[in-house]
Amino acid sequence: MTDSVQQLLKRGAGRTDEAMEHLLPGPETLPHSIHRAMRHSVFAGGKRLRPLLAMEAARTIAGDLPRGVEDLGCALEMIHTYSLIHDDLPSLDNDDLRRGKPTCHVVFGEAIAILAGDALQTLAYETLGKLPCDPGAAIQIVKEVAIATGTGVGGALPPGMIGGQVMDIESEGHAPTADLVEAIHRAKTGALITVCIVAGGIYAGASAAQVAHLRAFGERAGLAFQIVDDILDVTQSSEELGKTAGKDTATAKATWPAVFGLDASRKQSDALITDAFAELDTFGASADSLRSIARYLVERTH
Amino acid sequence: MTDSVQQLLKRGAGRTDEAMEHLLPGPETLPHSIHRAMRHSVFAGGKRLRPLLAMEAARTIAGDLPRGVEDLGCALEMIHTYSLIHDDLPSLDNDDLRRGKPTCHVVFGEAIAILAGDALQTLAYETLGKLPCDPGAAIQIVKEVAIATGTGVGGALPPGMIGGQVMDIESEGHAPTADLVEAIHRAKTGALITVCIVAGGIYAGASAAQVAHLRAFGERAGLAFQIVDDILDVTQSSEELGKTAGKDTATAKATWPAVFGLDASRKQSDALITDAFAELDTFGASADSLRSIARYLVERTH
Repeated sequence: MTDSVQQLLKRGAGRTDEAMEHLLPGPETLPHSIHRAMRHSVFAGGKRLRPLLAMEAARTIAGDLPRGVEDLGCALEMIHTYSLIHDDLPSLDNDDLRRGKPTCHVVFGEAIAILAGDALQTLAYETLGKLPCDPGAAIQIVKEVAIATGTGVGGALPPGMIGGQVMDIESEGHAPTADLVEAIHRAKTGALITVCIVAGGIYAGASAAQVAHLRAFGERAGLAFQIVDDILDVTQSSEELGKTAGKDTATAKATWPAVFGLDASRKQSDALITDAFAELDTFGASADSLRSIARYLVERTH
Repeated sequence: MTDSVQQLLKRGAGRTDEAMEHLLPGPETLPHSIHRAMRHSVFAGGKRLRPLLAMEAARTIAGDLPRGVEDLGCALEMIHTYSLIHDDLPSLDNDDLRRGKPTCHVVFGEAIAILAGDALQTLAYETLGKLPCDPGAAIQIVKEVAIATGTGVGGALPPGMIGGQVMDIESEGHAPTADLVEAIHRAKTGALITVCIVAGGIYAGASAAQVAHLRAFGERAGLAFQIVDDILDVTQSSEELGKTAGKDTATAKATWPAVFGLDASRKQSDALITDAFAELDTFGASADSLRSIARYLVERTH
């Protein structure tokens, strides 16, 4: 386990892209427009962090990559991509640029972009429905992923990805409070990152206690990741980010530095990673790659 | 099994609505806007045909309604509702009225309508992930539902619901051909209706041979249903339909009467139902309620 994080990222992205090629309909598959739109956004140069987290969580439990775990990673990346396509739409964030490329609706029009997002969510569950693992594990993954990416059910659970997006929309124009910013971050990006790690563990046959440690690790690392994202938005240029920098500030969005300031934000993301690492102690050296990725999440510069 | 179809419909809708109340977050659950938007569209007066088909298919196999089958019906109705919310959006069909009520984006705005549709799809899979049945059956249902509502994978399968919607959009303004209209109808509405029946059977423990008969029944009944929908659009007033009548004609959409004429369309829907009934012979009297519903589908006047 002496791989550099760059090697880990590169190999993880390679595995993900190869599996994704098999899972996504080709650009010549009818109807053309939607398949081209889905591929445009899926192959837009994402770092494949979420699939990597799922794969390395599975490796932490099983000692090696279980067969077919790339498909699990792809399903999670499809969900991430669908959420980006819909977030970028004119009636939501109205973003023309993502990772330095025109967004889906700019190239394919709004109707196809909406349906391409829908279809990526659907294909994610099709992929989960076909995972080559124990059916009990597969259906538990379906449930975990849906809860993490929904609105929160019955008020009993913290909201998931869509709930976080709605809270973000509703908070625009209001002075953000610390509690609200944390709730939005945990829901909007933290819940999906956490479920990648949880699902990877379940796929590899983790015990309930192991899943609990992976979940606690994911919650802390996921929040740290989003704090660093907010910091980068303030400190980096658009060219470095590949998207419109300073946009969060310009639209008075609820961000971590806006509430806590830059220095405190950096300290908090570091502290969260330390707490996250404590959850991995039980796994010993098997969790070294998860540790490398978590460290990368807070030390990255773009 | 002497229930009239009206009794079947009423009881099925009652069971569905009661289960839906438990599955959908309440209107006071934070964040408010999306939960109110989801409820607005889910409780907009739909006939609950798809849940009823799932429940009665399960009854055909098991002899009675298996415990929890209402939740399966609700998951399928959530998917149907999400597709309606997105279809009605300004960049798609741009419909202000559905079942006599203002559509989701008219009441809640486009951003929340898009996310409410997304969240209903997510909640559908959460519901499938929690079904109180054998995990092997549950994961098979997840796979079947996702395939039926996607774009078609690798060109090998007929396209599902979203694929049909895209074909419909792409065909606008072109003179529709018989093959294209049939392909769109089978994909856009037929596939979801079919999978309701298939999923109900799987939930109740149907054998592969029984599933094949249910699938063949569903494909024929689903196509007949959509042909009748097209006929009603031409022959009924807006008031009777609760939506803008003649809209399909006005926008030169690919419809059955536009290609085959009204009389031939009526004959074809009748013939399809006869073929559909032949697939139910193997189930004897246990399939009587499925037969009643299928007959209703082609004889209804709104």
